[in-house]
Amino acid sequence: MAMTPPDAATSEESSSLVKPPSPTELAPSPPPPLPVSVMTKPLHIVAHTLPALALVLVGIWMGSVLTSYVKSGDIVTPNKLAGFSWAYADGHVFNWHPLLMTFGFVFCSSQAALVYITLPFPHETNKKIHLALHSIAAVSALVGSIAVFRFHNEHKITNLYSLHSWLGALVWFIFVIQWAFGVYAYFYPGASPTVRASSLPYHIGGGIGVLALIYATAATGVLEKLSFNASCNVSGALNGEEVVGFMASDCKLGNSIGLVLALSLVAVIVVIIEAKLAPRPSFSSATSETVPLVSNGAASKQQGYHHA
Amino acid sequence: MAMTPPDAATSEESSSLVKPPSPTELAPSPPPPLPVSVMTKPLHIVAHTLPALALVLVGIWMGSVLTSYVKSGDIVTPNKLAGFSWAYADGHVFNWHPLLMTFGFVFCSSQAALVYITLPFPHETNKKIHLALHSIAAVSALVGSIAVFRFHNEHKITNLYSLHSWLGALVWFIFVIQWAFGVYAYFYPGASPTVRASSLPYHIGGGIGVLALIYATAATGVLEKLSFNASCNVSGALNGEEVVGFMASDCKLGNSIGLVLALSLVAVIVVIIEAKLAPRPSFSSATSETVPLVSNGAASKQQGYHHA
Repeated sequence: MAMTPPDAATSEESSSLVKPPSPTELAPSPPPPLPVSVMTKPLHIVAHTLPALALVLVGIWMGSVLTSYVKSGDIVTPNKLAGFSWAYADGHVFNWHPLLMTFGFVFCSSQAALVYITLPFPHETNKKIHLALHSIAAVSALVGSIAVFRFHNEHKITNLYSLHSWLGALVWFIFVIQWAFGVYAYFYPGASPTVRASSLPYHIGGGIGVLALIYATAATGVLEKLSFNASCNVSGALNGEEVVGFMASDCKLGNSIGLVLALSLVAVIVVIIEAKLAPRPSFSSATSETVPLVSNGAASKQQGYHHA
Repeated sequence: MAMTPPDAATSEESSSLVKPPSPTELAPSPPPPLPVSVMTKPLHIVAHTLPALALVLVGIWMGSVLTSYVKSGDIVTPNKLAGFSWAYADGHVFNWHPLLMTFGFVFCSSQAALVYITLPFPHETNKKIHLALHSIAAVSALVGSIAVFRFHNEHKITNLYSLHSWLGALVWFIFVIQWAFGVYAYFYPGASPTVRASSLPYHIGGGIGVLALIYATAATGVLEKLSFNASCNVSGALNGEEVVGFMASDCKLGNSIGLVLALSLVAVIVVIIEAKLAPRPSFSSATSETVPLVSNGAASKQQGYHHA
């Protein structure tokens, strides 16, 4: 212990300039890190891109494809629903809901989760980007939630009866706790280094957990909308033609969005887990959380806890 | 390195009997591990119990509650669908599908994911339990998948049109790859220690990813069944009484199952991440995968890679 220099980083940087250590100074050396996998970099790009693709596809769905198929007797009538509006009692108010939830909770929160792993900035900069993205996520999702309540209320539709809405409420509950605790523990100078260090695995676990729940909720939302649209398994006289088990563009796009969301969820989780568990020294964001970003001076002087 | 005794456990147990090391034997000691959080043990129990609760509730739903609400004009008629059967063209064949998928993919796979963290057995025993649980999961889910195809085919319902079915197909695809690669890399003696060590973070990440996808797919399944049952927002003359936005027991139970699945997903992920990231020496399952369980003799003699 007494042989450990006070500042290990400085010692490492200048190690090539000093004389080699004598045999008595030699400590057991850690095994060399494994090489970074060739899969790592492409996976990072995939994990950033897939949530963006989901967002673009949701925009196309809501903006120009959304169609419900209304059956009366044997006659099936397509009913175009696409387009955006914020006008009172306009049904297109609903269409902001999937777009803003996908932008906020799916896209921004996924990017926020990847920040520490993929961005080249210092850890403190990454923390600010992480908080900023989650804050934008919250604002977007709040407006998106308002959109669907407005739509329901203006059309006398019952609120909060579907599993999608129950899951959405649970996502909000966990997300707000995660956000508030994150600000308190890792930005505000109040939390002790011990609290910060011991809570971090729970913050990361809870973050991945609520992100998975966000994607699950999004998938139920897509399926719910498709079931309202009745566009996946159309049978009857459609545009003067008898169809059986016809899958409309609305359904093909919705199902594709669901698949993109699923692949996106797996990619984001694989990237995070790989970065946290692969024995590389470069990914050590979990090790310096004993020092808050906004410091009152005293906390930053305490020694940080590092993984063994 | 030469000073480390060959059996660290024995050395620890007898450390109080040997003389203290001389100053020249002192190496820089790692920082003391943080105390195990008081949240850890209860969370382990919750993570094991919630998937079991989901399974029990699905059994109750399919076995005795399942009811669809069929509307004709203003009259709404409840149509009891609960019960199990494997007879040809019997609609109750479907009910095996949610139960067997939940038992296999949700319950067994969740228990399998937690094995290394919560069970008191040696790592090699845990590996066998992990494989056994995932194998039982595959068999149960296979029969559950056959049940829904049989139901569709015997009732002339189109296969694979819904997002739930697309997600299910994706789950099967990733699950089979994970299973086969796991057997090849960590049981079969063919994979090199380097392959095993470098693939493990991807196996764990892919495993958590596909588990999250399993829960998302289950949630879409619950929502799809509830939309068929039309039990969440019943309006019309029901049992001689006019109802508006009535939520039947079928919906309440289905939505509750969805919530239990959601909490279960978050709990399982939090437990895994906490165990992998918390700086405790007891959780080192990721560190000894260079040695296959079924060895050809040569591989087991090679030195295992350990995290720094």
